[in-house]
This record gives sequence, structure tokens and C-alpha cells, in this order.
Amino acid sequence: MQGCAYIDGAFVAPEDAKISIFDWGFLHSDATYDVAHVWRGRFFRLDDHLDRFEASLAALRLVPGVDRARMREVMHECVRRAGLQDAYVEVLCTRGQPAPGSRDPRSCVNRFMAFAIPFVWIATPERQRQGIALIVGSPRRIPAASVDPRIKNYHWLDFVMGLYEAYERGAETVGLLDAEGHVTEGPGFNVFAVFRPGGRPRLVSADAGVLEGVSRLTVIELARAAGFELQLRPLPLAEFRQADEIFLTSTGGGVIAVASLDGVPVGGRAPGVFGPVTERLQRDYWALHDDPRYGEPLR
Amino acid sequence: MQGCAYIDGAFVAPEDAKISIFDWGFLHSDATYDVAHVWRGRFFRLDDHLDRFEASLAALRLVPGVDRARMREVMHECVRRAGLQDAYVEVLCTRGQPAPGSRDPRSCVNRFMAFAIPFVWIATPERQRQGIALIVGSPRRIPAASVDPRIKNYHWLDFVMGLYEAYERGAETVGLLDAEGHVTEGPGFNVFAVFRPGGRPRLVSADAGVLEGVSRLTVIELARAAGFELQLRPLPLAEFRQADEIFLTSTGGGVIAVASLDGVPVGGRAPGVFGPVTERLQRDYWALHDDPRYGEPLR
Repeated sequence: MQGCAYIDGAFVAPEDAKISIFDWGFLHSDATYDVAHVWRGRFFRLDDHLDRFEASLAALRLVPGVDRARMREVMHECVRRAGLQDAYVEVLCTRGQPAPGSRDPRSCVNRFMAFAIPFVWIATPERQRQGIALIVGSPRRIPAASVDPRIKNYHWLDFVMGLYEAYERGAETVGLLDAEGHVTEGPGFNVFAVFRPGGRPRLVSADAGVLEGVSRLTVIELARAAGFELQLRPLPLAEFRQADEIFLTSTGGGVIAVASLDGVPVGGRAPGVFGPVTERLQRDYWALHDDPRYGEPLR
Repeated sequence: MQGCAYIDGAFVAPEDAKISIFDWGFLHSDATYDVAHVWRGRFFRLDDHLDRFEASLAALRLVPGVDRARMREVMHECVRRAGLQDAYVEVLCTRGQPAPGSRDPRSCVNRFMAFAIPFVWIATPERQRQGIALIVGSPRRIPAASVDPRIKNYHWLDFVMGLYEAYERGAETVGLLDAEGHVTEGPGFNVFAVFRPGGRPRLVSADAGVLEGVSRLTVIELARAAGFELQLRPLPLAEFRQADEIFLTSTGGGVIAVASLDGVPVGGRAPGVFGPVTERLQRDYWALHDDPRYGEPLR
């Protein structure tokens, strides 16, 4: 496995990157993380990822023991040692182990880690060219009143159960609804629907109950720059089914076209044929990777 | 740290019990577990724990690669090697690592592990003698529609955030409500309230949205045997505040008296003075540990 990890203050091969099974980051999923990507030798919007990671740490009262400059340095060094030009780079912090016999998280020493591995796609580029098959899964997304989804976290069993449902139904991935039946997000991505009232594109995506993804933010900015109408608001499932275009946004692939929803072709299009808004945003998303304001060259 | 772990088919010291940070059991909290306890050289209700563990495995489509007889053997051997007479014995199974570049959980080889450590109390015996201070936390318990709480899981951030709230308010632990404002459970325990309509004890505890704890089941059986009225149903917070007695049930301590709820003495009693139902059930709970029908001697 190509890659490099940073753990206990040392850079190690991926197969040596291990944590104690007694770390609450594992036993209680008491941890947060963030994932930036490197494309053609440049980190994309690294500061946005570090801003969010620091906000997540503060919200969970995790103290990583390294400052932002060191986090950045570790991320660069993981990519350099892994010898990657296109990479998926994760920083994370776990609660650590409580004192023997204690269940008090305040007795833990929090642990910062990082790793760089080859770029991981939500769906393979081949699948993406066809457009992916999305279903609406049965589990409801863990609500913000329980675990704030803006704090990037590893509570994924709702997604995992939804993924199995997708596979059974011949699809690739899954989107979940909230308790009120609004579209939220899927495993590793935000969801956008495109409507065309009176001919002018209108983009709709959830305003709450979802991770505030960096790719989502990028699309919001690109949509505004393109003059598309944008509505961040609850999106009922019935309305979602009427969308002319649907796409996903993720660090693991940018803007990813959805070809079918619950087996029904989106916008009545043939596989591999995407709507103009999705195509435009895909192009603009990757073009932004050449913009020095968004890219930080590898050291 | 005293104890013994079983991982990758070998018995190891706790400090050598480590998993890959790339295991989805960590990165997606895609895992299940169960915890039995050993008291004075005997496992308590081990088959009930193994029944639940096997049900959790099936629900999450995890295949541990060991049969029930081997799980039991591993648990016994962990305790034997750790040299413990009172122990906390956990079995767990993680999804494992997906194929490189894949996000498909079906490409993972699931991993079975176990460990035995000295008995861990929800609250120290000293604190238990005073009765513990419980608060109602702000986070809502992750709902069953998102993650079925009967599948024992590591999605604990709602509890962890609630624990920090408890500490800030000078309390020891936290109980969470569901979205409708009913009392659910806390970190590692079920919750019971005792009322006394017309003088006769009535126990009330949640019927849904909670783990079906083995200690909870034991108390249900003991309450019935004692002739107490028992209602498993939604318990609104306002009613909970009127309880004459409140206790918690957990493998980590059995029946644990709550002295105060949000700072208000339960039943108007002084610290260290418990109600008769709690005292009776505590006594009966520990007495059951000498009953050969419930205990399995260490090998």
C-alpha cells in the first residue's frame, strides 16, 4: 500500500500505522478528522480544511498537541514521503486512553495523526463517466441534535447500512434523508439538485444537517460566479425526484454526476449524458485547481 | 496495565493490542461489540451477551471468522492470562480494510478481537455509596431510525458531549432524551425510575431507542420476581423528575443508585440514603451472581 502516516510523532509506512484498541477514538469513536486532497502536486484549499479541522477540535474539546503550522508541515511531509502527486491527505485527532479504570475523557491525552494515500474517488473515473446510480436509503441521517455533522466525524453506520442497501439494489451509493424527509448527504459527499424554472438554472442543497463540505463551498462559489440561482434550504424528497440534474460534491472527486435516482434516469437522460449545469461546474471545479489562490504547491 | 487482548489470532499484552488506522472499525466506526463481566471467578450471563453479539454481527453483516465456541474460549483465555477474578471482557468485530482505492465495505475482511481488563465501574464504589449525580444532557440520543441502539455500537459522541456537560455542572454522568423528550439511556447504562402510586412500587424504563442491556434484562426479571409493577414505555422528562427513586443498570456496576437529578435530590433523600426498591434490586442483582444458572466458572 503506497502512502505514509504520521503517528506518535513519527512518519511510518501505512502498514505500521496502528492505534491502541483502548483509544477512545476507536472504542467510542471519540475523534474528529479532515481530508484535503492534492491534485497535480498542489493541495486544494488546504486552509479551508485546516480551519474546519480546528473548529471540530475545539467543539469536541480535543487538544492535538501540535499547532497549525506543524499540522500543515506534517501533511506536506506525508505526501512527500509517499511520493504522491495526487493524494488524499487526512489529519485526525483521537481522545486517547483514559486513566486505568476510569471512564473520564478528561483523563485522556489526545492524539494527533495524519496520513497520505493515493487519491480515493467516491466512484471510479470510469463509473463517473457513466454517471453514478444513487438510491435513497432507509436509515435516516444521524441528526444534528445528536451529533453535529459540521464536526467531521466517524459515525458512519447509517451510511454503511445505506451502502449495503444500494449494492443490493444495483446502485453505487446512497443519500439519506433527515427525520422530516429532506435530502441530507451521503457517505463522504453533499448532494445538489438542479431545477430549471422558466429555463434558468436553480441549484438547491441542504442548509442544515450536513457537513459543510469544502467541495460544497467551492460549488456554491462557482454557481454564484456563473450566475446560477442558488437555494440552501431543506429539500423534500418529492421535489428531489423532479430534479433535472443531480450531482454530488466531495473531496473524493469534486463534482460527480448522478445518472439515476432509485433506478430512474435523472432528467430523462441516457447514461453518460449529463446536464449543462453539472458539466459546467465540473469544468470550473477542476479549472480552479490551477488557480494559485486555491492551490498550495507541495514542498 | 493489567489485562490480555486477542487480536490477529494471538493473545497479547494490552499495550500491544493495536489495529490499523485504516480499519473501517476506526475510520467509520463500522464495528460492533459486547461486554460481559466476570465476578468472583464467574462469567455472568455470558450466553446472553454472546446471543446479543451474534445478533449485532448479523445485523451489520459482519463475519467474525470464529464460531461461538471459539469466542467463548477466547474470552475465557483472555481472563485466565490476565489473571483476573473480577473482569470486564469485551468481544468486538471491525469491518477491516477495504481493497486499496476502494470504498466498498464488501471488499473488507472483518476482524474479530477481544480483551479482558480489570472490572470497570460506571462510577467508583465510593461514589456509588453516596449515589451518583446525574444530569439530563443537551444532546439527543442518536435515534434508532439512524443507528439501531440494540446493535451495540461505538457511536458515542452524543454521550461524550453530554459527559462534558455533566462535569461542568458538577455531576458524574448524563442521561439523554430522544427527539420527543423521553428519557433514553446514558454512556454505558440503561435508566429506571421508580414511582409509588398508592404505595405500590412501579418501575418505568424505556421500551425503545435504547440498548437492550443484559443488566436491564436482569432487573426486569428481578422486579417481576419481587412483585413490582413494571412498565416498559416512553418516559417523559417531566414524569422522570417526579420519580421517588432512580437507578442505572450496567455491566459496569449492576444496579447503581442516582442521588440527584440535575442537582435535585431524588425522592428528597440525603446522600447515601437510597430507596427500598433500589436497595432490594441491588441485593438481588449481586445475589444472582452466586446462582449457577447465571454464572459460568472460569476455566
